[in-house]
Amino acid sequence: ERDKYENNNVAGVVTGLAWTSVGGDILFIESILSKGKGLLTITGNLGTVMKESATIAMEYIKSNAEEFGIESLAFENYNVHIHVPEGATPKDGPSAGITMLTSLVSLFTQKRVKKSLAMTGEITLRGKVLPVGGIKEKILAAKRARIKEIILCEDNRRDIEEIKAEYLKGLTFHYVTDMSDVIKLALTNQKVVNAKTL
Amino acid sequence: ERDKYENNNVAGVVTGLAWTSVGGDILFIESILSKGKGLLTITGNLGTVMKESATIAMEYIKSNAEEFGIESLAFENYNVHIHVPEGATPKDGPSAGITMLTSLVSLFTQKRVKKSLAMTGEITLRGKVLPVGGIKEKILAAKRARIKEIILCEDNRRDIEEIKAEYLKGLTFHYVTDMSDVIKLALTNQKVVNAKTL
Amino acid sequence: ERDKYENNNVAGVVTGLAWTSVGGDILFIESILSKGKGLLTITGNLGTVMKESATIAMEYIKSNAEEFGIESLAFENYNVHIHVPEGATPKDGPSAGITMLTSLVSLFTQKRVKKSLAMTGEITLRGKVLPVGGIKEKILAAKRARIKEIILCEDNRRDIEEIKAEYLKGLTFHYVTDMSDVIKLALTNQKVVNAKTL
Amino acid sequence: ERDKYENNNVAGVVTGLAWTSVGGDILFIESILSKGKGLLTITGNLGTVMKESATIAMEYIKSNAEEFGIESLAFENYNVHIHVPEGATPKDGPSAGITMLTSLVSLFTQKRVKKSLAMTGEITLRGKVLPVGGIKEKILAAKRARIKEIILCEDNRRDIEEIKAEYLKGLTFHYVTDMSDVIKLALTNQKVVNAKTL
Amino acid sequence: ERDKYENNNVAGVVTGLAWTSVGGDILFIESILSKGKGLLTITGNLGTVMKESATIAMEYIKSNAEEFGIESLAFENYNVHIHVPEGATPKDGPSAGITMLTSLVSLFTQKRVKKSLAMTGEITLRGKVLPVGGIKEKILAAKRARIKEIILCEDNRRDIEEIKAEYLKGLTFHYVTDMSDVIKLALTNQKVVNAKTL
Amino acid sequence: ERDKYENNNVAGVVTGLAWTSVGGDILFIESILSKGKGLLTITGNLGTVMKESATIAMEYIKSNAEEFGIESLAFENYNVHIHVPEGATPKDGPSAGITMLTSLVSLFTQKRVKKSLAMTGEITLRGKVLPVGGIKEKILAAKRARIKEIILCEDNRRDIEEIKAEYLKGLTFHYVTDMSDVIKLALTNQKVVNAKTL
Ligand SMILES: [Ca+2]
Ligand SMILES: [Ca+2]
Ligand SMILES: [Ca+2]
Ligand SMILES: [Ca+2]
Ligand SMILES: [Ca+2]
Ligand SMILES: [Ca+2]
Ligand SMILES: [Ca+2]
Ligand SMILES: [Ca+2]
Ligand SMILES: [Ca+2]
Ligand SMILES: [Ca+2]
Ligand SMILES: [Ca+2]
Ligand SMILES: [Ca+2]
Repeated sequence: ERDKYENNNVAGVVTGLAWTSVGGDILFIESILSKGKGLLTITGNLGTVMKESATIAMEYIKSNAEEFGIESLAFENYNVHIHVPEGATPKDGPSAGITMLTSLVSLFTQKRVKKSLAMTGEITLRGKVLPVGGIKEKILAAKRARIKEIILCEDNRRDIEEIKAEYLKGLTFHYVTDMSDVIKLALTNQKVVNAKTL
Repeated sequence: ERDKYENNNVAGVVTGLAWTSVGGDILFIESILSKGKGLLTITGNLGTVMKESATIAMEYIKSNAEEFGIESLAFENYNVHIHVPEGATPKDGPSAGITMLTSLVSLFTQKRVKKSLAMTGEITLRGKVLPVGGIKEKILAAKRARIKEIILCEDNRRDIEEIKAEYLKGLTFHYVTDMSDVIKLALTNQKVVNAKTL
Repeated sequence: ERDKYENNNVAGVVTGLAWTSVGGDILFIESILSKGKGLLTITGNLGTVMKESATIAMEYIKSNAEEFGIESLAFENYNVHIHVPEGATPKDGPSAGITMLTSLVSLFTQKRVKKSLAMTGEITLRGKVLPVGGIKEKILAAKRARIKEIILCEDNRRDIEEIKAEYLKGLTFHYVTDMSDVIKLALTNQKVVNAKTL
Repeated sequence: ERDKYENNNVAGVVTGLAWTSVGGDILFIESILSKGKGLLTITGNLGTVMKESATIAMEYIKSNAEEFGIESLAFENYNVHIHVPEGATPKDGPSAGITMLTSLVSLFTQKRVKKSLAMTGEITLRGKVLPVGGIKEKILAAKRARIKEIILCEDNRRDIEEIKAEYLKGLTFHYVTDMSDVIKLALTNQKVVNAKTL
Repeated sequence: ERDKYENNNVAGVVTGLAWTSVGGDILFIESILSKGKGLLTITGNLGTVMKESATIAMEYIKSNAEEFGIESLAFENYNVHIHVPEGATPKDGPSAGITMLTSLVSLFTQKRVKKSLAMTGEITLRGKVLPVGGIKEKILAAKRARIKEIILCEDNRRDIEEIKAEYLKGLTFHYVTDMSDVIKLALTNQKVVNAKTL
Repeated sequence: ERDKYENNNVAGVVTGLAWTSVGGDILFIESILSKGKGLLTITGNLGTVMKESATIAMEYIKSNAEEFGIESLAFENYNVHIHVPEGATPKDGPSAGITMLTSLVSLFTQKRVKKSLAMTGEITLRGKVLPVGGIKEKILAAKRARIKEIILCEDNRRDIEEIKAEYLKGLTFHYVTDMSDVIKLALTNQKVVNAKTL
């Protein structure tokens, strides 16, 4: 199995949940910074909608930099690259939105993401989290990958309630309505190892 | 149901009415500003015609900035991002024109949009509102979403008159011919919460 | 019926004649200016050939600015947006050439277009007007829209002569060979309401 | 008939010969200058190979400006637009190469093209003219359009020799091997009417 | 046979292992520098995913320049070209990731790559090496090309263990989890012949 | 026959050998310089792989300017245009690589190419020449065009040895492994007629 949860110390790496033709899966959103002029590069064999999610996350953070404690000069002086392994698998859909948002806030604040946490949900420019599909398959994949906590849209609560309790053992769910809730739940106050000063 | 009217305090969020293969629906037009050089980004899985509506709305506002009380320096110093959730649904057509126009005027004036209001209509560069299709389905969707007032093109009045009165209970209709009418009806004089100073 | 002739006071709005799969129709060419760096944006669900007509009209005016009484600095300091409502209808072909030319000259001179006038004809870079097809259908559409005068290529005169006289009642035809003739016939010397100073 | 030879006084207008699915035809290559930064725009519903011909002609002239008596600063300070009417007809192939070359040299020198002259031939970067197809159909079209002289590649001489003498009455043929021969034959030393000073 | 291992002294040339429809093969990743502004050019008849690998490798190195001992000014002052011969063969997939990474680090440090070494593995932005497919075929191809050492992802160890011992004679395997391991194993401390000073 | 060997005095013109669906053929690679900013334009109805060959040749020369005796400032101050007549014939494949390389070195050094010489071979960024296909057909075409010497990859020697001796009469073969060998064999020390000073 190529995918496994990694307790990593790197900024910008966040665990998402995907729903593919062969079932649920975890995926990583990875992002890095390099000195540049504010360009955004997106890779990972992504479809149009998933690329749009990356654009939305980036623009939302730029527009709300102060709220996230980011100095907006950083957006002008660095290029951002967002990647979703594994390159051989085509991926699409809006459900990695909150995962990408968390990745970018972690990147620009250099703060560690909470351990053993995964998430899935669409983002909007008005700061709301929208529900997504494939919840049951995603939860089973999260368990296999030893995830402990999951962030979902409040409107996906009913999907969890329809799953047999035994499948949910050991999992804690956080239901959110706003994108600011995601960041509060997912980011710690600790800097990552070898944090960059932007 | 993913869609529901939200009484929000954010600039640039306006409720539109869409007509899809599975019936009428409400949709949100969302727009945000970030410091930049006047770039326009459009997301939401939109077809060519709907992207053109966003371009038309943006260019119309730039050309008529004074009429809308907007300082035209703002267009050079900010990037604009227009998004139409939900990313998984392809969307197209010109009928979100007045909704996009209202979103952008709200954004650049930081004024609140009227509560419980939805709208549908095509825009032109000569300032006229054009009629659109799917009126009956759109009205039913508006009612389900607890919309109270609807802005339509004067030429769509006949479409409303063909709908049974019982379906229209509780709805107020505003028929317009000019894009300036839309802005007068849709925008309040109140600034949004945490209004930006452009 | 969405289309009707409008006696408007806005610069850059000119009535053309189109020939579609469902018969003749009138259409509007609309153009606006905004402060910028000389960019040309074209919208309206147009095919390649019709977009080329807009480019040809723009470049012809730039190359012959003096003849049209336009200060060529204007081309560097403003962006131009040309739109052809209605966005839901795909449009193509070269026959809107003279209509686009007239729209842009009206825009850059801020002069009013003659009332109740419509036109159809292809443009060239050597200043000649070329004949176009679908004349009979276009003339019937013009009458329905209460157009009074029509500008056509001299080579389309024979097409008019083949139409029964009764269909032509109330219409005056102007046959032209040169693009400069079109501008002399179509533009008045009056400035539009709220004329901009470029 | 839309096409006819025009004895015009405008720089950059040259008569070519085309071979289409419905027989031979004459066509015009038109080019104009406007103040700019050296951009080349190409219109006329052209296929890739014909657009390449325009690029080749432009680059060849830039590389050999001195030979043509052109001040190379002109290339930086003007934009060039090359158009091939009629927009409704798709056109392709390399045979308009020498016509485009002549058009651009006429444009940048503001010299008149010889009267009643047409041409057809492919161009190269080493200054050679290559033979082209459809010669018989092209010659018949030239006669119909009252062309008197025709420039062809030396290697097309055999194609002319296979045509019955009666079809060739009144036509003078110039067979060339080098692109410089074309310019010597096609351009006069007279400036066009209202010649621009570049 | 076009492919054969070459014991070369040139920076940026690294041997990879490919899996095609006709079996395993070795391939070379080649990269060169030229004075420029930081552009990346990628050739070799590559599919989207393989081009993405090159982008990921380049961006990863930019983001971690210090770790690799590269002065980041070099990225601004040079263009990089990555090529994968042979142009007639289409190539795709993420498995050349570590080969591209090694090529670029060799290029920017001007250090020689270890002799008789080949590698295959996907790269990520969090510095992890991911397993790839076609291991058996790739190993057979490496032997045919007289490769002595092979770098693989730790997760591909099981694929090697399933291969008959006799096929593995004379091969040494290095199993890695991190991209930094690859560089330590693959790059020597010797400068290449005629090393450039960046 | 459109193709024939020309003993020309122009920089940048080199004879290659092509293999098409209708047999072997000679082709010319032509390149020219014009004052500019280092842009590369490629024409001639070329497929992706053949365009990539032009890019590889150009980048290789930029990266190894000193070896070829080229002042690297030239790359910044001139635009290069590479063309492959005849525009009506689609062409593709990597085998014109060494021909393009030779063309560009001739262009930037303004040195004459050896007379009666043709070549075919793929290029790489590590300076190696790779073998190509269709050798027999290419050799027959070279003879028909009165070529006297041919440069081939050492790995194509076996293809020549399989051809009957009588077909090879009058031809001298040069087998090479390195791109520097090609330049030594193909370029003379004489400047072309009217050599430019770069
Ligand atoms: Ca997976
Ligand atoms: Ca997710
Ligand atoms: Ca919906
Ligand atoms: Ca709407
Ligand atoms: Ca209509
Ligand atoms: Ca028209
Ligand atoms: Ca014609
Ligand atoms: Ca021609
Ligand atoms: Ca191979
Ligand atoms: Ca590999
Ligand atoms: Ca040939
Ligand atoms: Ca060749």
